[in-house]
Amino acid sequence: MRPDNLPVLPLSLMLEAVKVALQEDLGRAGDITSAATIPAEATATAAFVARMPGVVAGLPIVESTFREVDPSILFSPELRDGNRVSAGDVIARVDGFARGILTAERVALNFLCHLSGIATATAALVARVAHTKARILDTRKTTPGLRAFEKYAVRCGGGSNHRFGLYDAVLIKDNHIAVAGGVAEAIRKARAAVGTAVKVEVEVTSLAELAEAMTEAPDIVMLDNMSLDDMREAVGLVAGRAVTEASGNVTLATVAVIAETGVDTISSGWITHSAPALDVGLDVEV
Amino acid sequence: MRPDNLPVLPLSLMLEAVKVALQEDLGRAGDITSAATIPAEATATAAFVARMPGVVAGLPIVESTFREVDPSILFSPELRDGNRVSAGDVIARVDGFARGILTAERVALNFLCHLSGIATATAALVARVAHTKARILDTRKTTPGLRAFEKYAVRCGGGSNHRFGLYDAVLIKDNHIAVAGGVAEAIRKARAAVGTAVKVEVEVTSLAELAEAMTEAPDIVMLDNMSLDDMREAVGLVAGRAVTEASGNVTLATVAVIAETGVDTISSGWITHSAPALDVGLDVEV
Amino acid sequence: MRPDNLPVLPLSLMLEAVKVALQEDLGRAGDITSAATIPAEATATAAFVARMPGVVAGLPIVESTFREVDPSILFSPELRDGNRVSAGDVIARVDGFARGILTAERVALNFLCHLSGIATATAALVARVAHTKARILDTRKTTPGLRAFEKYAVRCGGGSNHRFGLYDAVLIKDNHIAVAGGVAEAIRKARAAVGTAVKVEVEVTSLAELAEAMTEAPDIVMLDNMSLDDMREAVGLVAGRAVTEASGNVTLATVAVIAETGVDTISSGWITHSAPALDVGLDVEV
Amino acid sequence: MRPDNLPVLPLSLMLEAVKVALQEDLGRAGDITSAATIPAEATATAAFVARMPGVVAGLPIVESTFREVDPSILFSPELRDGNRVSAGDVIARVDGFARGILTAERVALNFLCHLSGIATATAALVARVAHTKARILDTRKTTPGLRAFEKYAVRCGGGSNHRFGLYDAVLIKDNHIAVAGGVAEAIRKARAAVGTAVKVEVEVTSLAELAEAMTEAPDIVMLDNMSLDDMREAVGLVAGRAVTEASGNVTLATVAVIAETGVDTISSGWITHSAPALDVGLDVEV
Amino acid sequence: MRPDNLPVLPLSLMLEAVKVALQEDLGRAGDITSAATIPAEATATAAFVARMPGVVAGLPIVESTFREVDPSILFSPELRDGNRVSAGDVIARVDGFARGILTAERVALNFLCHLSGIATATAALVARVAHTKARILDTRKTTPGLRAFEKYAVRCGGGSNHRFGLYDAVLIKDNHIAVAGGVAEAIRKARAAVGTAVKVEVEVTSLAELAEAMTEAPDIVMLDNMSLDDMREAVGLVAGRAVTEASGNVTLATVAVIAETGVDTISSGWITHSAPALDVGLDVEV
Amino acid sequence: MRPDNLPVLPLSLMLEAVKVALQEDLGRAGDITSAATIPAEATATAAFVARMPGVVAGLPIVESTFREVDPSILFSPELRDGNRVSAGDVIARVDGFARGILTAERVALNFLCHLSGIATATAALVARVAHTKARILDTRKTTPGLRAFEKYAVRCGGGSNHRFGLYDAVLIKDNHIAVAGGVAEAIRKARAAVGTAVKVEVEVTSLAELAEAMTEAPDIVMLDNMSLDDMREAVGLVAGRAVTEASGNVTLATVAVIAETGVDTISSGWITHSAPALDVGLDVEV
Repeated sequence: MRPDNLPVLPLSLMLEAVKVALQEDLGRAGDITSAATIPAEATATAAFVARMPGVVAGLPIVESTFREVDPSILFSPELRDGNRVSAGDVIARVDGFARGILTAERVALNFLCHLSGIATATAALVARVAHTKARILDTRKTTPGLRAFEKYAVRCGGGSNHRFGLYDAVLIKDNHIAVAGGVAEAIRKARAAVGTAVKVEVEVTSLAELAEAMTEAPDIVMLDNMSLDDMREAVGLVAGRAVTEASGNVTLATVAVIAETGVDTISSGWITHSAPALDVGLDVEV
Repeated sequence: MRPDNLPVLPLSLMLEAVKVALQEDLGRAGDITSAATIPAEATATAAFVARMPGVVAGLPIVESTFREVDPSILFSPELRDGNRVSAGDVIARVDGFARGILTAERVALNFLCHLSGIATATAALVARVAHTKARILDTRKTTPGLRAFEKYAVRCGGGSNHRFGLYDAVLIKDNHIAVAGGVAEAIRKARAAVGTAVKVEVEVTSLAELAEAMTEAPDIVMLDNMSLDDMREAVGLVAGRAVTEASGNVTLATVAVIAETGVDTISSGWITHSAPALDVGLDVEV
Repeated sequence: MRPDNLPVLPLSLMLEAVKVALQEDLGRAGDITSAATIPAEATATAAFVARMPGVVAGLPIVESTFREVDPSILFSPELRDGNRVSAGDVIARVDGFARGILTAERVALNFLCHLSGIATATAALVARVAHTKARILDTRKTTPGLRAFEKYAVRCGGGSNHRFGLYDAVLIKDNHIAVAGGVAEAIRKARAAVGTAVKVEVEVTSLAELAEAMTEAPDIVMLDNMSLDDMREAVGLVAGRAVTEASGNVTLATVAVIAETGVDTISSGWITHSAPALDVGLDVEV
Repeated sequence: MRPDNLPVLPLSLMLEAVKVALQEDLGRAGDITSAATIPAEATATAAFVARMPGVVAGLPIVESTFREVDPSILFSPELRDGNRVSAGDVIARVDGFARGILTAERVALNFLCHLSGIATATAALVARVAHTKARILDTRKTTPGLRAFEKYAVRCGGGSNHRFGLYDAVLIKDNHIAVAGGVAEAIRKARAAVGTAVKVEVEVTSLAELAEAMTEAPDIVMLDNMSLDDMREAVGLVAGRAVTEASGNVTLATVAVIAETGVDTISSGWITHSAPALDVGLDVEV
Repeated sequence: MRPDNLPVLPLSLMLEAVKVALQEDLGRAGDITSAATIPAEATATAAFVARMPGVVAGLPIVESTFREVDPSILFSPELRDGNRVSAGDVIARVDGFARGILTAERVALNFLCHLSGIATATAALVARVAHTKARILDTRKTTPGLRAFEKYAVRCGGGSNHRFGLYDAVLIKDNHIAVAGGVAEAIRKARAAVGTAVKVEVEVTSLAELAEAMTEAPDIVMLDNMSLDDMREAVGLVAGRAVTEASGNVTLATVAVIAETGVDTISSGWITHSAPALDVGLDVEV
Repeated sequence: MRPDNLPVLPLSLMLEAVKVALQEDLGRAGDITSAATIPAEATATAAFVARMPGVVAGLPIVESTFREVDPSILFSPELRDGNRVSAGDVIARVDGFARGILTAERVALNFLCHLSGIATATAALVARVAHTKARILDTRKTTPGLRAFEKYAVRCGGGSNHRFGLYDAVLIKDNHIAVAGGVAEAIRKARAAVGTAVKVEVEVTSLAELAEAMTEAPDIVMLDNMSLDDMREAVGLVAGRAVTEASGNVTLATVAVIAETGVDTISSGWITHSAPALDVGLDVEV
């Protein structure tokens, strides 16, 4: 049940991230332990093995890491991003010079464990709303520098992406509304400013505000920290004229009942800012 | 009880990280919502407010973020990195043009919440071993691109830093030992290769291996996944001739009993790869 | 009649572009003519003067250029981006050390003349459709490396922006349709893949294709190289359920009649890839 | 009649420009349309086809663009830079995965159309002075960030390059002369300052100034905005002791008569700052 | 007698340095002489030949230089870094397109001659102390931007590396001691601040200061500008409880007697900041 | 006797070099010694003091280094680049927070000592030819990454600059001549290819070759490794129609007699690739 239509991460984005991570780990002197103890000609095979169940994300970055350290190392995936794993499953193998494998190990694992943790957390929320039409969305609450990868991991876990940044969609919040002079006026100003290719979303905190907002036909309305009852009524009020998005207090415990209010989407910061890493190890095989 | 002697993050390191994070969030078109709805001349004051108790880390990066977006915004910290906060505490205030404050908000919060989450998790472990001499260490299991900041956050939480990368200390693991021909030989090779300014650590998994390692006088021995009994015996065997480091199965539940074995240090990957973000918000003040 | 709501160019975007342009012009040896002939302490005042009528765009980049070369040079704009100029009008003045002014002159003018040329060309199209509701849109046919600035210049000329890149909106063209198995299927696939914050546009070349597309409710339909009659009929067929965009054969001569078909928007590559530079000079004042 | 001795663009210069252009177009999310609608395994062949007559320039950058997006795409040029094309001519073909071809299409075309436009404009001037010895020169009035490529395109069109920047030749203008204390003194100062490998050019606006300049034996004299009669007299006055360069009011209409005054070179800003793009399309072949 | 266990320079470090050096030499216009005079299809073989005796260092960077300029050029080393050469020895050969070979020649030689000069100077010091146990150390007195390569060259010459920067070891000097309130207090403060993976060195200038320092068990003591007698006494006082390092007045003439005092290490700035280049040429073979 | 007309190093060039050097020295953890032992509020004054006689070069880079580390540190030069110093002379002072001063110290000194060493070596050659008209030139035999600064230092020592790279002047050597089919043909090809702003130099090794070269009127002729007699005859043969440059075997011992042959210029690689550093220290003042 791997998600269809996973996006394609731009190659240069991955290479840049891998370079930064390797420079961080190698510094100027490199892997002084391997250089001192591993003969240049020694080879090894090693397996990425899941130590707990979850969803895999980040294999193209793992592959890029080994290619950057030593292009002669062979990377052989056993699974693909978006696949579920159980503890003990082999996710991929690497084969080649031992120095390169050990030098790349930690950077590769840091990417894989972090992104798979996000995919796993996302999949847990997605599973809980499977009986509804609601889609799980991410937010901009991501780790600085890794947003594109984290949003990709959300997709691997079956979630959908919200806007990527401040640049690709309008999201009018309370502070904007206060300064702009009301929710309707704020939407009008935004519509006039942005091109026709950009969606306009507005955050509302009450049914009254929602009603005013709907007079300007926003593309999306975010129902922020509303009660379940209000949310249900909001869905009725919108009546399909805009996409509805529930936000606030989204946990594994609450997500199902929120979804059952009929909202189209539910956004969660937790899946990116607080998902624990998936435990994966690299076992050198004899 | 703020830790003394917090390190000084290189300025260019912070600026580089802030630039990357802002480019990620602003893209080429910038903050299209604020540009459309907030007049250029509108000003605001806003407060960073903790929504849960924890330890603060990352304020210099928060300041750099606002300075990068708009140098005229005034940043006034109420607290310093390493300080404890309760829910509702004001951590810092910003004052200046509203557009710049709203544009920088999410990037600043993403740094602050992530790093404060690590400091908070570290402080929790540190508190549990306060009755012993054990110091809590971080690992290389960090978020790619953010290691220097995360290791700084560990210090804010009262922890100590392990090596920063593959380049600044030798850490001989089982794979190195296997290829090098035994633990003693691996230590000898490392000593011969690295300069006198570099420490040599070796990972051992049994008392027998520890005994062999000690014949070559390593600076640090890592006791990997040992039983509490073995750990206690290992500490006696080492007898102060090397720094002892416990590793494996370190949780809030187990850290105290591990510390009570008498080890000098305990290293934890969890504090960097899985610490939940500290919830902090930016409240615009009237 | 300066356009409202001009976007705010991210500061780091301007600084990066200015740095690249200065490195290109200064190389490693710098401005060897000024260093040899102008005493370090000589000062000057100079005026940016329009040599032909047009619309100004790029003043913040001009200011950034002087600041980068010599932060002590004072930049005093007489006009703002989006303002119209006649031949002889002073656009801005600079005052400070003569060496810095002469060193920065060409880079500053290259930005200003290029971007003002785009704003001027855009304004010419906008003026011709002022009696209709049609908005003039740019395209992705921009100068490599300068897209954000060129799209900003389009806004200065009164135009609107189409998508900024392949990343912020879906635009399904004939090639996508051919491979995806029909226009309706292509729209369905796109909707399923992208998040709710992204608009979906489809390019159609016939009324039949338009009719099929409309069954999947795209956000925007591009009427590509249609006859005026077909375009008029298409507008009726869409009936406000999607934004309509005319594309192809858009010139100063044709734009008015295209607009009169009732389309919402008209996109033009010419305004970015072929607009002649606006002639502006820097006159040193006695 | 392709120009001999075309320069070799440094590889890293092309790769850097291509990377910047692709990042601009792909952002963090990549080509979301192709990812959603084109299966990963679909392949295609496509041809770059001229839509109007002109001169080709930029094929190595086109090739670099496809290589950067997907190194497995095969690029097969039918022509070389500097070749003339008629409407309908195939310039090059690409063959490989459809996603990569469509993702790279616009960036490749933006380079090719822009640079070919410059080569075409240059060739038009060159053709008009073919009956004289005059060479057509470019200027520093180039698009920021693209100077090296634009100067290369000028060469493809049969033109010659003026200095690349402020760093590789001295060009003394009126402002320098005013501050330095006269044209002769300015030349002396420049000669004393720069190494023997650097040429010294001086801009003169009258025959009197020319006469004074010639007393210091400049390598090149620029005759700025002189009348045709003065230019003719200037050429006689110089008598081969320096290279003569005509500047100002150079258009397709005037270039021939300027050349007929006997000047060695004629410099034109128009060929780089205002040349319309050459219309080239990428046609997917069945 | 090539040194064992030479470190492995991170690949990206070499590529970055090579790119910078090539950009510096090629600028925007590239190798205009080769482009004008060498046909694109001409090939050549050339040999790197030592013109004086010494020790080779930098071959991987030489190889990277040719690969960056033209990946089709074959690089065939005859020797390895750390090998001794006599005048006339062939160090390596390159074979491929003549343009690429000539374009890369100077950058490759600049790296090779500079680093081999450092290796040669180091080897001269090492040879003079071969009858003692003393190791020759480098310092931070390196050429900006090239430290990692220069420290690698020191290793090629048989020397050892001191710390790589301010970040990987503590070195307490007189200025730190003065501010911190005494040498013992300074060591205590450092120990408390840095992690257990970091060594602490202290610089002492008298036997009294050494005695105080030893009460805090530093890892290394630097005996700065001490007389030979004091140095001998210092070695006795330390008695193996710390590594001893002699510093100051280290020349080819003095290094042997310094080593004979019994110090463990001798550090020299001369080997990096003042070693003359090794003369190596590239001879094109018929 | 400070040289007039010293060039102006582009600011961004200096900043980039300083950033690279600081990153190299500070790594990710920064100056751990100063952070641990120096209180944040401690201040100091320190003086750059020459320890041997020489010529100063690099003060603007020293200033940039302190500004980059801590903009509040005051830098007060006592001398200017190009000035002579005796042992004990104060070159400049810095005043401000002690941490920043100590953190920046080594990077600032590494630049200053290296560049002043080059200026000093250059000045020594210049002094020996002062009784002739010969100018001392540098070469492309520079330290990778530092060429612009080293060529600036040559100017500070009273020398002149040869071409900056492969891009700004043609220099035809034996290998080019061999492939191009003779020296005259090579000059013709070069003239045809490069623009009128570029000088053409040719290397000749015999009087016969010189005679052939002169038929094509090169701008500069390099007399490579010629005997003094041949050089003298060559100068007569050229008779002022080209600049003459002596190359090969240029040492402090030989430079005067070479100059006395009447050549215009003498180029030396030694002044950049092998000049010993000038010893300068930073003394903290009480």
